[in-house]
Amino acid sequence: MEKLSKAARAGAIVKVLIDSPNRMFTLSELAELLGAAKSSLSEDLSIIRATFEKLDLGKLETLAGVSGGVRFVPMRSQQYLVNLVRDLCSRLADPSRKVGNGYLFLNDVLNDPQLLFKLAEAIAGRFVLANVDAVVTVETKGIPLALSVARHLSSQLVIARREIIFSEDGVPMPVTRQESTVAEGAVLSVAFESGSHRGVQSMSLPRRSLPQGARVLIVDDFLRAGGTLRGLGDLLAEFSSTVVGTVVLVESQKPSIKLIDDYLSVIKLGEADGKIYVLPGNII
Amino acid sequence: MEKLSKAARAGAIVKVLIDSPNRMFTLSELAELLGAAKSSLSEDLSIIRATFEKLDLGKLETLAGVSGGVRFVPMRSQQYLVNLVRDLCSRLADPSRKVGNGYLFLNDVLNDPQLLFKLAEAIAGRFVLANVDAVVTVETKGIPLALSVARHLSSQLVIARREIIFSEDGVPMPVTRQESTVAEGAVLSVAFESGSHRGVQSMSLPRRSLPQGARVLIVDDFLRAGGTLRGLGDLLAEFSSTVVGTVVLVESQKPSIKLIDDYLSVIKLGEADGKIYVLPGNII
Repeated sequence: MEKLSKAARAGAIVKVLIDSPNRMFTLSELAELLGAAKSSLSEDLSIIRATFEKLDLGKLETLAGVSGGVRFVPMRSQQYLVNLVRDLCSRLADPSRKVGNGYLFLNDVLNDPQLLFKLAEAIAGRFVLANVDAVVTVETKGIPLALSVARHLSSQLVIARREIIFSEDGVPMPVTRQESTVAEGAVLSVAFESGSHRGVQSMSLPRRSLPQGARVLIVDDFLRAGGTLRGLGDLLAEFSSTVVGTVVLVESQKPSIKLIDDYLSVIKLGEADGKIYVLPGNII
Repeated sequence: MEKLSKAARAGAIVKVLIDSPNRMFTLSELAELLGAAKSSLSEDLSIIRATFEKLDLGKLETLAGVSGGVRFVPMRSQQYLVNLVRDLCSRLADPSRKVGNGYLFLNDVLNDPQLLFKLAEAIAGRFVLANVDAVVTVETKGIPLALSVARHLSSQLVIARREIIFSEDGVPMPVTRQESTVAEGAVLSVAFESGSHRGVQSMSLPRRSLPQGARVLIVDDFLRAGGTLRGLGDLLAEFSSTVVGTVVLVESQKPSIKLIDDYLSVIKLGEADGKIYVLPGNII
């Protein structure tokens, strides 16, 4: 391969590192990929590290020496997260988002890949030192944010399944599982009392989806009373998991007493005089 | 800001462009971000473009001139995709994946953010010129791949909801919707005949989630007979969508006649003599 210039190497290194956040690359690996000497790579990495720090683009963690290596660690400044959250709040303050009686239309925000990517990078930065093995969420709406966070942490994504066991009059009833669940092998379930709905729901996780004793970060879309997340905590206890944190995108101000504590919320929804208002959550 | 070196600028430019794939940045925007002259940036971009091409890292599309701009377009070579698919096939050939009667455990693969990211980048490359407004999937298992593809295409993600309306004996029955769906406003539904299950299912999409006449790419996890995807096609027709393509992660060889055509599959599952085998799909 023709020798690359310093700038060419720097550009290529950044693409390779960022494509696999949190993965340690050895200098030998990079040297082979780029057809460059390890000594040149060390210099390149110093330049990139300093530039990323200066421009608040994340951290490069380097291990010195010939047997050294490097990984990209997605860590943004607190100010970066503050700006993101404020932008989100103004986007959500648009009155046309009001649907029905006291609800906000959030689907587009929950499913905006670019916004989720940026938020997730900032959220992941908070937990990057906690050695997270898996990001766990409850289907369905939390999946996009949870996946985005998992990607930045290089963790597995694990999705707990929620069984819908309400009839019209609130009486629990069995629901036939989709055929695809046959392919999941043995499944662990817990029943839990929902904080907001009447009655009992159930949540499950295939045994194979999460190893015993994993360090997990819980990421979900919405926190009202916290019944679902408390149920998830019970389910994770069956896997002897250590929960290193809980992050929700939206927290509703009511009820003010939640069934879980120590959570981080990106934004908070309140209601007063029939109007919905959007505030930054406790993450900033 | 202190002036950055050429290598420093190249590293920073790559991070900024890759964080927002398919977004056009003007030279002025980059110049302000990096405190650099537009003429220097033009040179940097030529170097990065040539390097990315040489190393198969994707394309840089540049508009020449002072009023010019640049965007990162995720396009990998066919060989890159072939290697990914072959790796995936060997990963799935592990006999311990067999669960129950003729099923493969796929959850870890479906939820592996790093693998999905790479696959999605390669898939997105196939549709990057098709001006995709939205990537549409059916909850739940297709969401992670669909989100990953949507991110690379800078498209919105849209998730159709599937109603579970089977009782134990196959009789359709109503299910109470989760409270969160109240926040979605008016919803369009279609009933469809499932190809693999007996009877009728229903699928829905909030009116607000997809504008009329959008160009959509369908991405899902599993294709058996194709009833669900045909139902999704009917639902999308109600939104006057143009479907530019359909991609599934796994296609099952049986039944051999599918209810949809013109789809791309990443891998194919077959069964012979009670053994499951894994083959590359028609995407390679």
